[in-house]
Amino acid sequence: MTFPVVGMVGGGQLARMTHEAGIPLGIRFKLLSDTPQDSAAQVVGDVVVGDYRDLDTLRAFARGCDVITFDHEHVPTEHLRALEADGIPVRPGPEALVHAQDKGVMRARLDAIGVPCPRHRIVADPEDVAAFAAEGEGFPVVLKTVRGGYDGKGVWVVDSAEEAAEPFRAGVPVLAEEKVDFVRELAANVVRSPHGQAVAYPVVESRQVNGVCDTVVAPAPGLDENLALRAEEMALNIAKELGVVGHLAVELFQTRDGRLLVNELAMRPHNSGHWTMDGAITSQFANHVRAVLDLPLGDPRPRAPWTVMVNVLGGDYPDMYYAYLHCMARDPRLKIHMYGKDVKPGRKVGHVNTYGDDLDDVLERARHAAGYLRGTITE
Amino acid sequence: MTFPVVGMVGGGQLARMTHEAGIPLGIRFKLLSDTPQDSAAQVVGDVVVGDYRDLDTLRAFARGCDVITFDHEHVPTEHLRALEADGIPVRPGPEALVHAQDKGVMRARLDAIGVPCPRHRIVADPEDVAAFAAEGEGFPVVLKTVRGGYDGKGVWVVDSAEEAAEPFRAGVPVLAEEKVDFVRELAANVVRSPHGQAVAYPVVESRQVNGVCDTVVAPAPGLDENLALRAEEMALNIAKELGVVGHLAVELFQTRDGRLLVNELAMRPHNSGHWTMDGAITSQFANHVRAVLDLPLGDPRPRAPWTVMVNVLGGDYPDMYYAYLHCMARDPRLKIHMYGKDVKPGRKVGHVNTYGDDLDDVLERARHAAGYLRGTITE
Repeated sequence: MTFPVVGMVGGGQLARMTHEAGIPLGIRFKLLSDTPQDSAAQVVGDVVVGDYRDLDTLRAFARGCDVITFDHEHVPTEHLRALEADGIPVRPGPEALVHAQDKGVMRARLDAIGVPCPRHRIVADPEDVAAFAAEGEGFPVVLKTVRGGYDGKGVWVVDSAEEAAEPFRAGVPVLAEEKVDFVRELAANVVRSPHGQAVAYPVVESRQVNGVCDTVVAPAPGLDENLALRAEEMALNIAKELGVVGHLAVELFQTRDGRLLVNELAMRPHNSGHWTMDGAITSQFANHVRAVLDLPLGDPRPRAPWTVMVNVLGGDYPDMYYAYLHCMARDPRLKIHMYGKDVKPGRKVGHVNTYGDDLDDVLERARHAAGYLRGTITE
Repeated sequence: MTFPVVGMVGGGQLARMTHEAGIPLGIRFKLLSDTPQDSAAQVVGDVVVGDYRDLDTLRAFARGCDVITFDHEHVPTEHLRALEADGIPVRPGPEALVHAQDKGVMRARLDAIGVPCPRHRIVADPEDVAAFAAEGEGFPVVLKTVRGGYDGKGVWVVDSAEEAAEPFRAGVPVLAEEKVDFVRELAANVVRSPHGQAVAYPVVESRQVNGVCDTVVAPAPGLDENLALRAEEMALNIAKELGVVGHLAVELFQTRDGRLLVNELAMRPHNSGHWTMDGAITSQFANHVRAVLDLPLGDPRPRAPWTVMVNVLGGDYPDMYYAYLHCMARDPRLKIHMYGKDVKPGRKVGHVNTYGDDLDDVLERARHAAGYLRGTITE
């Protein structure tokens, strides 16, 4: 059989869950992982341990792969171009991926295609931050290094020019953005294939705690139908204009005055789509694999009126096994997803999904399980 | 984290799908496979290639496993006893598993606990087959070697003593059974854990073609509620009386006069339970893993009114990739499960699941996809 080989760069939980989704598809999965202990490396058959920043390593890995895709956005753009020049399809490609790697490039491009964003500009130093504030609503101002941030890292909210020194220390360009007065955060997730087929998942509400995704509710409760449609169209348009192949997550602010502003883009399966593993006809992981192979995409519609995902963060107890056993006994319908990672306080080590007809019940079950696993709920 | 290691003996598709189900559970999975090309060996990280008939190989494999379970029933009973004596939990254990290995032992035990079976006895030679026929309904008579048969192999239906020579040639004891006048075949699937928790999946209808499972409909259409309950109770009772741990499939004949007779037992995930991967809250594979680890079991209830599974058998074309692509394009809701096996005519190389509210539609979609993949449907 000529079932193709998907090469995945990065051994985190996204790679792990993509492998899980690839097994029923019958494809071959090859992994480039930093260590043999990484989350995905524990469960994949064909693992190369090596450094994705080294072009020779990437080239050797790519040999025998029909397509290369990613668990993260950190592979240098020039390496991706080199792989493409070698004739290896890279999906998403470097020209698309740079918009998820560099927030400055992303903002400039979204401006150019008319996608609404928070007011923003690249700033030179703390005095320039004060000037940016004075041009608009004043402080607080959000500062982001244009590269390298995730889960709240590389992001600062400052109340004065004096507080604005830190972001400039790394020597990376700094983007200033207005602090948006939002009602809530939404995510519009879409998947696009090379021949241009695209599907949109229902728009979800994403609740953050300390800059880290905590809870996702699918679909976003009480979201106006027109606003949901606008969010989906915005994400589909971004995917098309930027030439994204695979899964694209568009994180959005819903403002008090009913606008949608783009916060971040991610071009890979995303935490805001983990609910699809148990809540949609086709998961984001399965559709990402189908997209990068240019296979027809699966139905993204939900299977239940409500699905809730809550992340399981590491707590004070290194061993979750008995808590996990307790959660299974308490709720036989609970869907637990553990990543095989050592527990460290605040680290994402798994997530739980629940679904059903009654949102309050579905939310309570997911929150209880995640809290019990973390150790913040003990009854 | 002290998440346990499950050792799986056998590298077929059942092991492959059990690994898939084990990934979200966060458990470690270790595989003993005949070759590195076996269906499961392609997708599992920790693979030992070796012969399960060799005790030293089994012992070395079992070191570092918290429990041993199986993809097939062919491991010699004395080896399983030796592993148990070494202190390795073997689930299901040898005392239970022998009932799935030896049809003579199974029939004797089911008689002893009062479970209805087709009329049967061990026969010595073709003359004895004629005597068996004369004791009851006459010919045809079903002959089975007590060990080693599967998917119609090791089973003969004979119309006379003259036709009955073949089964005796292998030198294995032969079981004679009445040819039951059945309306249809059913399967009652249950999962039982060491501490005695058990769950029952809805009773399904299983349609065979040439002795091989072709289509499974969940739940069995039009099955009388009392008969369904009786089948579930029968399976739960067999699991308890035989001390089964893990998944037990009880294949049943529904007779014209409304009785249920046990045809076969399988103590592992089973083809009649593949529908649960997309059709039940918890799949048979996830519950098998939970059971062998003595974790609380997951909810076995269906997620849709109807789920249909159709096996994908190899046809005349060795490459299914373009047919697979076509099926995805035709039906975005289709759930395809490919096993990574080379296509040979008649070989099980995958299955498809469909689900929904309308049984005719669900059946048509599954049959079309399986037929198209096999090459017997070309439009």
